[in-house]
Amino acid sequence: MSRKELNIGVVGYGFMGRTHSNAFLQAPRFFHLAYSPVLKAVCARNADRVKSFAENWGYQSAETDWRALVARKDIDLIDIASPNDTHAEIAIAAARAGKMVLCEKPLGRTAREATAMVDAVESANVPNMVWYNYRRVPAVTLLKQLLDENRFGRIFHYRSQFLQDWTISHELPQGGEGLWRLDSAVSGSGVTGDLLAHNIDMALWLNGPIAEVTAMTETFIKERKHALTGQVQPVTIDDASAFLCRFANGSLALFEATRYARGHKALFTLEINGERASASWDLHDLHRLSYFDHRDESRLRGWKSIHVTDSDHPYMKNWWVPGLQIGYEHTFIHQAADFILALDSGRAAAPTFRDGLATEHVTDAVLKSAKTRQWETVPAA
Amino acid sequence: MSRKELNIGVVGYGFMGRTHSNAFLQAPRFFHLAYSPVLKAVCARNADRVKSFAENWGYQSAETDWRALVARKDIDLIDIASPNDTHAEIAIAAARAGKMVLCEKPLGRTAREATAMVDAVESANVPNMVWYNYRRVPAVTLLKQLLDENRFGRIFHYRSQFLQDWTISHELPQGGEGLWRLDSAVSGSGVTGDLLAHNIDMALWLNGPIAEVTAMTETFIKERKHALTGQVQPVTIDDASAFLCRFANGSLALFEATRYARGHKALFTLEINGERASASWDLHDLHRLSYFDHRDESRLRGWKSIHVTDSDHPYMKNWWVPGLQIGYEHTFIHQAADFILALDSGRAAAPTFRDGLATEHVTDAVLKSAKTRQWETVPAA
Amino acid sequence: MSRKELNIGVVGYGFMGRTHSNAFLQAPRFFHLAYSPVLKAVCARNADRVKSFAENWGYQSAETDWRALVARKDIDLIDIASPNDTHAEIAIAAARAGKMVLCEKPLGRTAREATAMVDAVESANVPNMVWYNYRRVPAVTLLKQLLDENRFGRIFHYRSQFLQDWTISHELPQGGEGLWRLDSAVSGSGVTGDLLAHNIDMALWLNGPIAEVTAMTETFIKERKHALTGQVQPVTIDDASAFLCRFANGSLALFEATRYARGHKALFTLEINGERASASWDLHDLHRLSYFDHRDESRLRGWKSIHVTDSDHPYMKNWWVPGLQIGYEHTFIHQAADFILALDSGRAAAPTFRDGLATEHVTDAVLKSAKTRQWETVPAA
Amino acid sequence: MSRKELNIGVVGYGFMGRTHSNAFLQAPRFFHLAYSPVLKAVCARNADRVKSFAENWGYQSAETDWRALVARKDIDLIDIASPNDTHAEIAIAAARAGKMVLCEKPLGRTAREATAMVDAVESANVPNMVWYNYRRVPAVTLLKQLLDENRFGRIFHYRSQFLQDWTISHELPQGGEGLWRLDSAVSGSGVTGDLLAHNIDMALWLNGPIAEVTAMTETFIKERKHALTGQVQPVTIDDASAFLCRFANGSLALFEATRYARGHKALFTLEINGERASASWDLHDLHRLSYFDHRDESRLRGWKSIHVTDSDHPYMKNWWVPGLQIGYEHTFIHQAADFILALDSGRAAAPTFRDGLATEHVTDAVLKSAKTRQWETVPAA
Repeated sequence: MSRKELNIGVVGYGFMGRTHSNAFLQAPRFFHLAYSPVLKAVCARNADRVKSFAENWGYQSAETDWRALVARKDIDLIDIASPNDTHAEIAIAAARAGKMVLCEKPLGRTAREATAMVDAVESANVPNMVWYNYRRVPAVTLLKQLLDENRFGRIFHYRSQFLQDWTISHELPQGGEGLWRLDSAVSGSGVTGDLLAHNIDMALWLNGPIAEVTAMTETFIKERKHALTGQVQPVTIDDASAFLCRFANGSLALFEATRYARGHKALFTLEINGERASASWDLHDLHRLSYFDHRDESRLRGWKSIHVTDSDHPYMKNWWVPGLQIGYEHTFIHQAADFILALDSGRAAAPTFRDGLATEHVTDAVLKSAKTRQWETVPAA
Repeated sequence: MSRKELNIGVVGYGFMGRTHSNAFLQAPRFFHLAYSPVLKAVCARNADRVKSFAENWGYQSAETDWRALVARKDIDLIDIASPNDTHAEIAIAAARAGKMVLCEKPLGRTAREATAMVDAVESANVPNMVWYNYRRVPAVTLLKQLLDENRFGRIFHYRSQFLQDWTISHELPQGGEGLWRLDSAVSGSGVTGDLLAHNIDMALWLNGPIAEVTAMTETFIKERKHALTGQVQPVTIDDASAFLCRFANGSLALFEATRYARGHKALFTLEINGERASASWDLHDLHRLSYFDHRDESRLRGWKSIHVTDSDHPYMKNWWVPGLQIGYEHTFIHQAADFILALDSGRAAAPTFRDGLATEHVTDAVLKSAKTRQWETVPAA
Repeated sequence: MSRKELNIGVVGYGFMGRTHSNAFLQAPRFFHLAYSPVLKAVCARNADRVKSFAENWGYQSAETDWRALVARKDIDLIDIASPNDTHAEIAIAAARAGKMVLCEKPLGRTAREATAMVDAVESANVPNMVWYNYRRVPAVTLLKQLLDENRFGRIFHYRSQFLQDWTISHELPQGGEGLWRLDSAVSGSGVTGDLLAHNIDMALWLNGPIAEVTAMTETFIKERKHALTGQVQPVTIDDASAFLCRFANGSLALFEATRYARGHKALFTLEINGERASASWDLHDLHRLSYFDHRDESRLRGWKSIHVTDSDHPYMKNWWVPGLQIGYEHTFIHQAADFILALDSGRAAAPTFRDGLATEHVTDAVLKSAKTRQWETVPAA
Repeated sequence: MSRKELNIGVVGYGFMGRTHSNAFLQAPRFFHLAYSPVLKAVCARNADRVKSFAENWGYQSAETDWRALVARKDIDLIDIASPNDTHAEIAIAAARAGKMVLCEKPLGRTAREATAMVDAVESANVPNMVWYNYRRVPAVTLLKQLLDENRFGRIFHYRSQFLQDWTISHELPQGGEGLWRLDSAVSGSGVTGDLLAHNIDMALWLNGPIAEVTAMTETFIKERKHALTGQVQPVTIDDASAFLCRFANGSLALFEATRYARGHKALFTLEINGERASASWDLHDLHRLSYFDHRDESRLRGWKSIHVTDSDHPYMKNWWVPGLQIGYEHTFIHQAADFILALDSGRAAAPTFRDGLATEHVTDAVLKSAKTRQWETVPAA
């Protein structure tokens, strides 16, 4: 069982730095992989803190300049877990250096940035992937299987939300560490890129391309103190974003994301209604899939709550025993495992950068429609 | 559509007087019945209040002495909705007078009383029925159909609860109007006869006879002021009652009733586990049945929440349209309709007095076991 | 307790004829009313069937021409429960005859029709009301109380759906009895007027006026056999309708109605998110309100499922005891009771025809936006 | 941050060998610990498989004889994750060798075995702990906090179940690898020791000592082929076990465990009802606590579903962000972390062997009562 080594350099040690590091450590313990991930280096600007992070997670070394990391010969793969405004530059440099490139979502701040990133990895012909981790929730993967088996028939409706409530207080500053998501210069947008991007990636995967959208956005709190400047400044992100759309398959859909839905921490939901079956899922109970099958005996039709923890459910034979649930971090472990499994298989590990670009075309159309107040067509990726 | 008249005299104008009156009025509007119930008279001791009640519900007359009611020639059916200590005497007199007899549950305060009542109606050969209304919740009737169709296979387990919390306060007096259920001289027992009797009747109907029980009871608050005497007196009822049992079919069961389960208003639950299927139900969402079928495709097994409001569900084609739920009072309407439908059919409308006696044999065994601290065998009814 | 009589003539004996008749019969049994509703006459075109309906529900007489009904001196109130294309003509005639007028929703097929109806009742100065019955679900009324008590603070979001699945089959014909809702000449529109109108009426009541909308509609099955002509004809109603909007109070909202959401029978939902609290409700479990209060102790925050059956909940002291739920028909009973209670109070019983018109302004704007593909402003009612 | 090393030797590489290994690896990455766990050795009889397990989990060495492991000077702590019949012998030897001893539950097969184990660790004065991991579900720990803060008042009721369905098939053999839980010679008992022991440990922790019990057990399938002998042999374990009991605090309780509850994979539930508050929890949605507080405003009382993922919830600040759930394995990580944290604190990490013995006194009383058909008193631990 001597496995080839896959030497990894991670950029960023925030929330996503932790989830990615954990994924690389856990994947080989629970999945049979031909490559053994090695945590070669982690990179971030603060030398003390990056050293401490490296020790905690067992990285062999720490860097403070991502260019130095990209230049290292002993690194096979660059994984970008730093804020959105750094994604494009690092990814393009890494691709040019011939590294495999993984990137936290959203791929770029705009479709323009994302396009350059796609061009770079495709020109360099390096394996690449965007961390839209929620595709690897077993309940969601199960739903994808059911759709692929054509159990739903013609699709009529799709709807998806991502509801949070953590920015309602006027006291919350914008920008700076941990709060760069509130600063559009860094993040690119507010909930559209941060939350709706998840809804859209999953929808494109499950229900195919989106043809056109009409959208609205809102910034409820217009000014906040900036954490870096100390000044009260206009808030430039969208606090809430919603759109109607038509999919290429003719189905109608509603999407909504907000950080002002009191009572919801991370309520990512989806529902799909087909001619013969429907299904719904939400992140607050991620281990369950709700499923309705019209072909059931008439008297006994109902929504079934499937506890997705059996050995014939996606990914679950690698974990514990039926009835014992997994959690959020496992979606990253599954994605890391799938990426490594795909290395030998020749199959691309989805979502690729090109898949990530498709989502950005939708988010760009949403933001544009909110300004033009028109229906906007979504370009093909 | 000229229907024969069924002339009814009701004893009691409390909570159950209202549900029965409503049932007789509503049944013919929603069900096709050969007999038209006529509210001839209502009887209770307080002349002013019985007159007011009669006006409100459209009774043709009011009586203050049940003996006078039973003696009336223009009455076909005596319906007993008065406190438990009056059931036996009225029922026996009514049967002897050749009246049909309906009786609110429990039939008597003890199996001994209930036996005399069974003897009376069977000797007189008059139609009779006990108002164990919950059998007529459509979701429960649907479950009975599924069991009769042998979808469950061998039954391994049954469990049932009736949880309330309305007597936790020390300030609550015992006895007197509205509170006679706390006075064992009137009620016969506490939660065993009031609540567990419902659990048991439904269990006997769904899962067959109970062979033996081991039980415990408790009176949490030992003394309360008596509403009639004004004196602080020992509380003689059971506040909580629980038992383990074995059914004749070999299944094991747990039953529990209490008025000290904070947060539950009337949480009557049941669950049954068979070799091939399981089901559960509760009164707080009475229009739903939860159903699990092991023969479902493995990946898609789960508990299905059936919204029992379709036209092919029991009783429901007589109500509204799918998705629109009915409530508590409808169980009485269904039972009244079934009784009237059975008059011409020759079938007895269940539960008969003899069925009611079977429940009392169990409640007697429960109360006895709680005293003897032994397993007690349940006699056949 | 001799009550004044309120002499009622009902037009229509379909689904709504039954719910209204039941409401007039049940309201005085459960609520203390100064007026006693008397079912004077029911009117419909089929003489045999209207006679049978009259007998079943205890109407004193039957009519086959609504003009004759409106002309009767012994009638105080005309209640319109016939298809949508008859509402305006009957209501205007009844108002001119000095009758009180109740009308099943939607008020007219268009805001233009509804405006004429408002003019008629306001000119005649007669009491009037539209049967948007769902305001009287106790859980919804409780939510209205909580909003009026300003427990939510600034409102950020509102969302509401009405999902059904009964028209998915291609075999279903359009038009004719029971299916006139599929014929836009009779109904005015599809789900926009039939279902979304409920969502909108409730939203206007709870969250105030809607300022502007952008919408989309779809007809999934383009042709159906017409039940009256026997011909396959184009389907002219909207099968699905969705819109984004902004309320006057600055909140953002999503609305959706469809008859193509497999697995949902009548899933009318709403959710409202405020600065300090949020709430949600749905018709499939209408007796529950979900409530989240941010002022709860931090560790113990969560969504509370309130079983709205206590005596201090709206309408519930008139029914049974805590824990025992009511159902769909009770919303009509409550509305009938409120109308009668308002007769002496001087308060108008809401929703009045003018309130009903406000909803039609929104539905018209929705249908217009779906055609123009523009944001449309909603006129004030 | 140079941490002292804690050198660990694990016995067993089955299901529990995996959960313990994972716990030791993950605990230091997510919790700040003074000791760094080092996976020195894993021990099991099959040399090839133990080597493979050691490689996968990063153990420095593998052993095939637990006596050799216990004899090693470089090991500080022996962790027993092998079948029940090995617990006592290994634990006692390890204690005598001066090792810290951790033991998978149940401690011994009987209270007699467990007593000897307690004597050994207490004589040797070595840190010791039993892996009743479910105490460390954050929702359960939160409930413990609420009870300790006396929010519930006098406790009236407790109930707890552990329902599974994996042994219903007649085809399932008994004994041998993966199935030793069906062989009472190895396991000691069936569901009583395997499942009820979890219910009891948690109940003793939350609600104090149990005074007396009355129980019943059942073996539904009387004979199965034995996986080791190939012979059809009598089944000697209990397939189902239920008991009523009284706690020392006067509360009444029902407990039930079974492997014949079709539709339930690992439904471990509990509910506690106090004078002022109630709570419930179940393992199928382990990240939620249901809580009812009678002191809430009357109109707004209800069961609150607390999504236990906030930073002020037990253990959760060490994981992700609010709304993102953890799973089953985390309970072991928390317990490992707590054990290590307690090493310096001087506090014993609960549950100790003595706590584990208390549970065995209850399980012994349950099994005895099922035979004697009498109430049995539970001795103090």
